[in-house]
Parts: sequence; structure tokens; C-alpha cells
Amino acid sequence: MSGAPRELTVELGERSYPIYIGEGVLDEAGNLFTERGISKKSPLMIITDANVAERHLGHLAEVLTSAGFTVVTAVVPAGESSKSLTELERLIGIALEHGLDRKSAIVALGGGVVGDLAGFVAASFMRGIKFVQVPTTILAHDSSVGGKVAVNHPLAKNIIGAFHQPELVLYDLKTLQTLPEREVKAGLSEVVKHGLIWDASFVTWCDENADKLTALDPDALGYALYKGCSVKAAVVSKDERENDLRAILNLGHTIGHALEAVAGYGELLHGEAIAIGMVGAARLAVRLGASEEVYTVTKHVLQRVGLPVRLPAHLATDEIMRAMMHDKKFQEGTMVFIVPTAIGVVEINKSVSTSLIREIVEQLKQEAI
Amino acid sequence: MSGAPRELTVELGERSYPIYIGEGVLDEAGNLFTERGISKKSPLMIITDANVAERHLGHLAEVLTSAGFTVVTAVVPAGESSKSLTELERLIGIALEHGLDRKSAIVALGGGVVGDLAGFVAASFMRGIKFVQVPTTILAHDSSVGGKVAVNHPLAKNIIGAFHQPELVLYDLKTLQTLPEREVKAGLSEVVKHGLIWDASFVTWCDENADKLTALDPDALGYALYKGCSVKAAVVSKDERENDLRAILNLGHTIGHALEAVAGYGELLHGEAIAIGMVGAARLAVRLGASEEVYTVTKHVLQRVGLPVRLPAHLATDEIMRAMMHDKKFQEGTMVFIVPTAIGVVEINKSVSTSLIREIVEQLKQEAI
Ligand SMILES: NC(=O)c1ccc[n+]([C@@H]2O[C@H](COP(=O)([O-])OP(=O)(O)OC[C@H]3O[C@@H](n4cnc5c(N)ncnc54)[C@H](O)[C@@H]3O)[C@@H](O)[C@H]2O)c1
Ligand SMILES: NC(=O)c1ccc[n+]([C@@H]2O[C@H](COP(=O)([O-])OP(=O)(O)OC[C@H]3O[C@@H](n4cnc5c(N)ncnc54)[C@H](O)[C@@H]3O)[C@@H](O)[C@H]2O)c1
Ligand SMILES: [Zn+2]
Ligand SMILES: [Zn+2]
Repeated sequence: MSGAPRELTVELGERSYPIYIGEGVLDEAGNLFTERGISKKSPLMIITDANVAERHLGHLAEVLTSAGFTVVTAVVPAGESSKSLTELERLIGIALEHGLDRKSAIVALGGGVVGDLAGFVAASFMRGIKFVQVPTTILAHDSSVGGKVAVNHPLAKNIIGAFHQPELVLYDLKTLQTLPEREVKAGLSEVVKHGLIWDASFVTWCDENADKLTALDPDALGYALYKGCSVKAAVVSKDERENDLRAILNLGHTIGHALEAVAGYGELLHGEAIAIGMVGAARLAVRLGASEEVYTVTKHVLQRVGLPVRLPAHLATDEIMRAMMHDKKFQEGTMVFIVPTAIGVVEINKSVSTSLIREIVEQLKQEAI
Repeated sequence: MSGAPRELTVELGERSYPIYIGEGVLDEAGNLFTERGISKKSPLMIITDANVAERHLGHLAEVLTSAGFTVVTAVVPAGESSKSLTELERLIGIALEHGLDRKSAIVALGGGVVGDLAGFVAASFMRGIKFVQVPTTILAHDSSVGGKVAVNHPLAKNIIGAFHQPELVLYDLKTLQTLPEREVKAGLSEVVKHGLIWDASFVTWCDENADKLTALDPDALGYALYKGCSVKAAVVSKDERENDLRAILNLGHTIGHALEAVAGYGELLHGEAIAIGMVGAARLAVRLGASEEVYTVTKHVLQRVGLPVRLPAHLATDEIMRAMMHDKKFQEGTMVFIVPTAIGVVEINKSVSTSLIREIVEQLKQEAI
């Protein structure tokens, strides 16, 4: 099957922008950049990480240079620790040395780490310049849409940032072929999440096409990313600044973030942690009255795409609970939780008792696999 | 004369906000904060510098605490070097340790340094929280209005920042009584600038009331700050993001910034450097055909409020020119310059020859005083 190009628009009034998904869409970067008003008079800067630079930077730089853009490149170390103010300052130094100005653009070529960091460079350099997302991980179908950009503080993740929408998102399925298998599966976790919060038939589709997805079949992958981006775009269009609805995107994330923090970033990838978190949310839903199917379907589809569903027993429940309490979504004895009331439907429950969550965490350690 | 409260509004659609100017307006902070939706449920953080903390922090903290707000305070060293990513990270650490959240507000108590730094903390903490400006310098009538916030990069000033409008500006004339005389005069430079770009009759008024202004007479000062803020607000309302009109606020700044850079920050205060720059712009205007009066009136009013008009001879012209070339307003052999075509009227001239500017710089070194 072929990964023929698909296109969708993130509707945000005058900040609306297109997403192109398909095999080889990067070859069209020159035209698409020009259509979206990226200037050839001012240099643009591609920011990427060391792993992606090795595999895909040459191609993108060449396409853009041939199209007449002046291309500056900057490579950061791979990994979460590059989302720091130190890297931000270094990148802005490179931008200044190469004469970037207010008409310049920043291009993020990479996964969520590069997208978040480069996006904050674009948001803050000269108080905001244009920005293009070129996601190269499956997870980045989530992070590249919606305009949330940030770096980390030693005390908290993603705490220093901005809302800064890109001019366009260019998703070339070819770049995904070099992604390590574990990253593929972790990325599919957010794809499934977008089904679970919004579209039951897409959850069924993920289940039926799980093997194609993990094998990176271009057409299945293109469709899944298109659907995932569509859900994200629909939610963001309705609530750009996370006042209310956008919170549903956090399904699985309250437990997930706590697991990442307690395990020490690294043991669990983000997508793995939230897979476990989504099983927890489904268990919670059933305890609160939802049909048992919410739990069985959630768990099954996640297992089908190769994700973990059992919480590693060596992670102390007390520590997980403490980490959740520090989560901004917590309030006095009860917590805010995104609860799937049916497959494809979630609600924001503002008064889930913390003791019930503790029970769920314990049960997740026993989860049959 | 009394400095009875004056009020004006910065018109920016749903981001509009009021400015209160008067003696003792800080005593009303409790009500005004509440009216503007600052939450009592979440802690707020006052950021100030060491000089201002000693003189005015206790009072503001007490007023707000009495009104029922939970007040966290953070003090940075006085001076431009606090506008750094290092201070930003430290302040965000304090915010996190004291439990600030998305409903919290940041209050800037101080001059332009504190306003710019605290404003960028507010813009970037959790991707943007509420912000209140409590300016304590005369110069800050300029910096506290308009929403430009930033920190410096080792290679360039104000290069990392955002547009983040405050919820309100509270300008208590009492706090200005402790300002060092040199800072008073430097601040008046931007007051005069607002007359020169927008309102000839206000320039005349500044001339006639210069002695009262330098003596910090509350009523004269209140009126001058009200007028200065009004001009700034009018310009910003028409061009929030500095696409065109807002550039007129840079009268005197092209030369001024170059002088600050070459002298090494410290020898010349910002207001002093732009006073010399405004005389240069007036000289340029006359060379380009404006009436001689543009130059004589500009120079006279600046001298009346105690500002320098002669460029220090030891600053090398070559270095000044080089510093200007790196200025973003420069383009190929000609430069963009804000030129006063009459008192109270400026134009953006996009093709002033750099050799003419060089002549002006030389003449500024001979300026009679
Ligand atoms: N802004 C948002 O809305 C949002 C949403 C979700 C997650 N995030 C952020 O996204 C980040 C995680 O993103 P991620 O999972 O993409 O991580 P990542 O960017 O670190 O990429 C994962 C790994 O894959 C490598 N890689 C990337 N593309 C590759 C390719 N094509 N071939 C080979 N290797 C490749 C990277 O070098 C890295 O080692 C986190 O920092 C998270 O906070 C942001
Ligand atoms: N954001 C904008 O639109 C804008 C516009 C103009 C200038 N600025 C910025 O403003 C800064 C300059 O502002 P500034 O001149 O107010 O400098 P500042 O904040 O450094 O204040 C000047 C000095 O006065 C002291 N001080 C302040 N208030 C005092 C008081 N009431 N009593 C006694 N001492 C007091 C300070 O500690 C400092 O030593 C620069 O960083 C400049 O880039 C920003
Ligand atoms: Zn996520
Ligand atoms: Zn100025």
C-alpha cells in the first residue's frame, strides 16, 4: 500500500495551519514553505537532534537549499535533557551568529523533544518568529499539533514555555522508517489515546490494523497519523489555551506522569507510562459505573500494538501517589481525573477520591498480561 | 499641588487594561487586583530588585496580605545583568517551591529591568500566567505599557522574550520620591520622546514645567506620566506586535542603542543615550529638509530636564557605526531611521544613507552645551 499524501487543517482563525502527511512530502518542502509565507530573504534555522541529524537532516537541508532558502542547522544531543534553558540560550546564540532576524523561521526536525525546544526558541527569539514542525516520531503527531512548546526546569517538566502555533506541519512517513521499534510502539500509545477520547470506530480500526501499524505499513501509518492529528486538531480548535476541553488529551497522563517521575525518566518511555495510565483510567471508569468493556477494550488494543499494561511492581505506591499529588491536577483529598465513560467518550471528573486511585495503582501492579 | 489619581486604558480588545497613576494608589492595590481578577486562592509572587525591596516591598506586601492575598516575594540584584535566563530559572524555581499555579499572578515592583524580567517569568511560567506592573522609575512609564517583556542573551539585549500584556499597571508617585536624581532625568528622556513623536503641545508643557518635573512635584509628574503613558498606549493599541507604527517609539534609539553598546552599559544610562540619539535624529531631520526648529526645540527641552546632548568624544565613530550596522534596523548601505519631520510628528525613513549618519555622529561630538 502507498502512503499517499493526506492533508488537514488546524482551525484556529487567523492562526490556522495545514498538516501534510505522506510518503515523501518533504520533497515538496520548498513549495509548501513558500505558500505559507516563509521568507527566502532571511536565513531559516533547522533544529534537530543527533540521531535525526545523522539520518534525515542532509535531505531536508538539501531540499530547502535547492529551493532557494538560506539554511542554518543546529544539532542538540538526543534526549529529554536537551529541553533546557541552557540549550535555548545556546541555540539563540547560533541564531544570532548566523543573522536570523524577525522574518526568519525555525524548523523543528525531530520528535517531541526537538519540537518542544525548537518551538520555544521560535516563540521567544525576538519575541516570536515563524515556526515549522517536521515530526519524525509517531509520538510527535501529538506534540507537533496544538502549539504547546516548552523546556523543562530542574524541578518540573514543561514548566517554561508558550503557546506558539506552527505555520505548517510536514509529516513525511519515510522519516519514520528509521525509528527504533520501542519508539514506534510508544508513539502508537498516543494514537490509541486519540481514539479512546474521541472515536470508538478508530479504536476498532487500530485493533484490526495493529500488525500493520507496528510494521510501519505506509498506508496504515498514514491513516493512523491522519486520524490522530485530526482528533488533536479538533480538540485544540475548540480550546487553544487549555481552559477546559483540552484537558481530555490528558487521558492516562495523571498516572503516566507519576510513573515517569518515580521510575526516573528512562525506564518507561512516555507512551509506555501513559498506556499503563490509560488502563488505570479505564479501571477507574468501571469502578465509577462504566461498562466493563471500557476496561477490556482499552487494555486489549494497547496490548495489540505492543504496549505494557502492568505497572512495574518495584515502583512504590506511596511514591507514585506523592508524585500525583504534586501534579497540578490535584485538589484537597480528591483529584481531577480524565475518565473514559465509554470507548470514544471521556469526562473530566473533578472529585475522584485519592484513596480510590491508590487502589487502582495497586491493581495495576497485578494486571494480567 | 497633589498627585490626584489619573486613569487611562490601553485599548487592546479583550486584552485591554487600565493604568492608575497617582500618589498612594498602591494603598488601593487590594481592590484593584480583585477587580482585575487576580485570584486570592493561588499565591501571587512579587518580583523586585534589591534597591526597591529595601524601600517599597514591605508596603506592597503588607497591603496585599491585608487584603487577603497570599504573597510570595523574590528579590533579584539591581541592574541590567538580572535580565538573564539564569535569573528566570531561579525565579521559576521559587515560584514552584511556593506552589504558584496557573491561576497565580506575577507582580513586577521596580523599574524596567524588573518589569521586563518579571514579565517574561509571567509569560513563560506554565505557558503564561497573569501579570501586574507596579513601576517605580520614571523610565518604566514606557517599559510597563505595551507588553514587551524580555531577558538578554550574552550576544544581544532583549532578544529572548514575548508580548505579554499586564492585567493592570499601578503607578504610585510616592515610590518615585526615592529615585536617584540621575535616574529621574534619564526617565524624563522617554517622557520627552513621547511628546516629540506625538504631541507638540506636550513638548512645550515639558519645557515650561521642567523644573517641577526634575523636583518630582507630584502633580506635574502625575500629568507627565499620564501623558507619556497615553502616547505609548495609543501607539501600542494601533500596533501591538510592532509590525509598523510601533517603530516610531524608537526615536533616538538607533544611535542611542549603539552608544550604550560602545560605552559599555553603565557609562551612559539608557535615557541619556537616547537623549543624544534624539538630538542626532533632529539634526538628521534638518539635513533631510525639516525646519531648523526641530533641532533647536528638541535639544532645548532635553537640556531643560537635565539630559546630555553631546556625544562623549572618546567613543570611536567607527565602533558606533559598526554597532548600528548590527542593529536590526539596518539594511544594505542605507538604514531605517525614525525622523522627526516636525515637533510632534515623526516618519519612518527606510533609506537614510549610512554616510550621512556618520556625519551626524561626528557633529554630535561637537554639540554646544
Ligand atoms: N507539546 C506537546 O503538546 C507535547 C505532547 C506530547 C509530548 N510532548 C513532549 O514530547 C517529548 C517526547 O517526544 P518523542 O517521544 O518524540 O521523543 P524524542 O524527540 O526524544 O524522540 C525519541 C527518540 O527517537 C529518536 N528519533 C526521533 N526521530 C527518529 C527517526 N526518524 N529515526 C530514528 N530515531 C529517531 C530521537 O533521537 C530520540 O532518541 C517529551 O519531551 C514530551 O514532553 C509534547
Ligand atoms: N519593555 C519595554 O517596552 C521597555 C522599554 C524601555 C526600556 N525597557 C527596559 O527597561 C530597562 C531600564 O529600566 P529602568 O531605567 O527603570 O532601570 P532599572 O529597573 O534598572 O532601574 C534603575 C535603577 O533605579 C533603581 N530603582 C528603581 N526604582 C527605584 C526607586 N523607586 N527608588 C530608588 N531606586 C529605584 C533600580 O534598583 C536601579 O538601580 C532596560 O532593561 C530596558 O531594556 C523596556
Ligand atoms: Zn502524552
Ligand atoms: Zn527606550
